[in-house]
Amino acid sequence: MMQKLSILWIACCCSILISAQNAKKNALVFTDAAALKLMGQAFPLKSYHRIDTGLHRNFSAGIKNLLTHSAGLTISFKTNSPRIAAKWCVGSDKPSGNNMAAIASKGLDLYIKKEGKWQFAGVGRPKGVCNEFELVKDMEPGEKECLLYLPLYDAIKSLSIGVEEGYNLSSGSDPFAARRVVIYGSSITQGASASRPGMAYPARLSRAMGIQFINLGLSGSGKMEKEVADMVASIDAEAFIMDCFANPSPEQIAARTAYMVKAIRAKHPQAPIIMIQSVVRERGNFDLVSRAYVKSQNDNALKVYQSLLKEGVSNLHLIPGDQLLGGDHEGTTDGTHPNDIGFDRMLQVIQPALIPILK
Amino acid sequence: MMQKLSILWIACCCSILISAQNAKKNALVFTDAAALKLMGQAFPLKSYHRIDTGLHRNFSAGIKNLLTHSAGLTISFKTNSPRIAAKWCVGSDKPSGNNMAAIASKGLDLYIKKEGKWQFAGVGRPKGVCNEFELVKDMEPGEKECLLYLPLYDAIKSLSIGVEEGYNLSSGSDPFAARRVVIYGSSITQGASASRPGMAYPARLSRAMGIQFINLGLSGSGKMEKEVADMVASIDAEAFIMDCFANPSPEQIAARTAYMVKAIRAKHPQAPIIMIQSVVRERGNFDLVSRAYVKSQNDNALKVYQSLLKEGVSNLHLIPGDQLLGGDHEGTTDGTHPNDIGFDRMLQVIQPALIPILK
Repeated sequence: MMQKLSILWIACCCSILISAQNAKKNALVFTDAAALKLMGQAFPLKSYHRIDTGLHRNFSAGIKNLLTHSAGLTISFKTNSPRIAAKWCVGSDKPSGNNMAAIASKGLDLYIKKEGKWQFAGVGRPKGVCNEFELVKDMEPGEKECLLYLPLYDAIKSLSIGVEEGYNLSSGSDPFAARRVVIYGSSITQGASASRPGMAYPARLSRAMGIQFINLGLSGSGKMEKEVADMVASIDAEAFIMDCFANPSPEQIAARTAYMVKAIRAKHPQAPIIMIQSVVRERGNFDLVSRAYVKSQNDNALKVYQSLLKEGVSNLHLIPGDQLLGGDHEGTTDGTHPNDIGFDRMLQVIQPALIPILK
Repeated sequence: MMQKLSILWIACCCSILISAQNAKKNALVFTDAAALKLMGQAFPLKSYHRIDTGLHRNFSAGIKNLLTHSAGLTISFKTNSPRIAAKWCVGSDKPSGNNMAAIASKGLDLYIKKEGKWQFAGVGRPKGVCNEFELVKDMEPGEKECLLYLPLYDAIKSLSIGVEEGYNLSSGSDPFAARRVVIYGSSITQGASASRPGMAYPARLSRAMGIQFINLGLSGSGKMEKEVADMVASIDAEAFIMDCFANPSPEQIAARTAYMVKAIRAKHPQAPIIMIQSVVRERGNFDLVSRAYVKSQNDNALKVYQSLLKEGVSNLHLIPGDQLLGGDHEGTTDGTHPNDIGFDRMLQVIQPALIPILK
C-alpha cells in the first residue's frame, strides 16, 4: 500500500514538474499594472508617486523628487499562471547608491501567499532604465495571491505584469487595508539599506502585523518642515510614527518636533503618535563627534517628548533608539543605514512596542 | 564630589572632542599598503590576488579572473591617528552585480579592536575605478589595531592607507594566524550578498572563532574541477570546508566530490574535511524545478558523503543545508544569495557545528 502511494506521489510530482516545464513554452501576455490594485499610498493617485507633489508647491525640490520614489508602494494581483514576469521603467539611469543593491533601489520584489503567510517568491533585476525580467517560473497549478513591491529609491514610470497566455491575471485586494499607520522618517524609513524592496522595515512591519504601514521616508530630508508636517497630519490613519530624528539637527529637533506632534494631534484627537529615536550610528563606535551628535539629536527628541507629556499631550509614545540595532555593531551597511540584520533587530524592538499601542 | 567629577568628565569629553575636531585639519599622509601585513591568502603573494594564477595555466579564464578578486583579503595595521583614509583602485569599471551594494563588491570595510573584540569602524565608498575615502575620523587618542577588508567582487590594483601627519602607521600582525581553515565554494562563500566585505561569512567566522578562514569562493564556478581540487588540496591548513554544492550539477557532484575529498585526504591525512550542503534556494519556494534541482544537488552530496564514510574516509563531516537560512524565507537578496540575515543564520548553524570538529 505504502509503496503504491509512493509511486503515485512520485508520478504526481513528475507530472507537476513536466507540466511546469512545458508551460514555460507559452508566450507571456503583459497587462498594464494600472489595471491592478496599487497599495501603500497615503492618498489614492493615478501615478506611482507617494504623494501628489503638485498639491504641495512649497515642498523643496529634493522632497518632491523623493516623493516620486515608489518606496512602500505595492501591486496586489491574482493569477493562476505558472510564470510571472514584469516590464518596468524607472525614472533615472543614475546608478544606485553605493550602500544599496540595485534590486532594492530600482528592482522589484514578489511575495506570494502560502499557507496564510506572505512568502518571498522572486525578484526583478534591473539592468537599465527599462527592464524586463521573469520574477518566478515553474509554479504548481492554482490561483495565487501576489504582492509586488516597487523600487525603494527610484520612480516607476511604467509597469506591466506578464503571465502566460491562457492564464488569468486580475486585480487583488489590499490585505492590510483595514488598518493604516503612517511612518514619516529618513532614508532608513525609505529603505536604505534593505537588500530588496520587501525588506524595508515598514514593509516587514505590514507583513508581520497585518497593518498598512505607509512609507513616508525621505532620504536625508525627513526634517519635519512645517509644510511637510501639515501634509503628514492630513493623512487619514489610525496612528503616526515619527522616525524622523536622524536627519534634522539637534536644534531643528528642539524647534520643530512639538509643531509636528500638535499638527497631527489637532487633526487626529485620539490617534497614537509614536516617536522613534534615531538608531545609534555605528560609525560612532569610534567617531566621537558623530556619536555626540546623534546623542544630542536623541536627547533633544526625549526632551521634547517629556515636555509634550507635561503639557498634557495624550497617547504620545517614545521608542528609545539605543537598542534598535542590537549590541554587536554588525547591523549596518555603512555605519548609518541598517542592513537586513539591522532592520530585523529594529523589528524586534518596534513590533513589540507597537502591539500594545495599536491594540 | 559627584558634581565635581561630572564637571571633570564633561570637560574631559569636550577636550577630546575639540582635539579630535582640530586634528581633522592635519594633512593626510598615505602609505602603500604593500608595507603592511596582508592576511587571508592561501599562499603568500605580492599582489592582492587570492591565488597566483600564473602557476595554474589549466584553470579556466573565469576562475583565473575570480581568483584576482580580493574576497577575504585583509590588511592589518596599527595607528594612533585620529583619522584613517584610503586610496584604492579596483580592476574594472563594470558596475556591481544588481544583488550587491558597491561598498561590498568594490569598497573597503574597516574594523578596529575595542575591548578585545573587532568592531566595525567605517567603510570606503567606491565611486569609480580609483577612489579616495575617509574611513573614520575624530577618534580618541591612542594606538589602535585595525583590520581593513578588501573588495569582495573586484581586484585591488593599488591601495594606500592615509593617516594624519605627525601620527604613526605600522604593520599589524594577523590575529588569526595561529589557525588556518580553507573554505572552497561558490558566490555565497565569495560573499554575495553581504552588505560590506567584513560581513561575508568566512570573515564573520574568523572574527567569531579567531581562526583564519581562507576565502576560496568562486562565484558561479565552485565546481570541483580536478585542477582546482588539486590546488585546494595543496594548501597548508588544518581543515577544509567544501561549501561547493551550489554551482556543480547533481551529476558533477556525483562525479567529482570523491576526487576532491581524496585529494585533500592524501595531502592531509588527519585534517577534518567538512562538506556543507547548498543553502535551500528561496526562489524554490514556488519554483518547483529550482527546488527539485537543489534537492538533487544536496541528495547527491549526501550520497557521496555516505559512500566515502563506508569506504573508511575518516574525519569527514557533513553540515545539512536545510536550516542554513532559517525558516522565514527572508534570508536572501535574490532568492539565491544570502543577505546579512541569511549569513547570520548560516553562522548560527555552521559555527556550532565547527566547534567540536576544530577543537
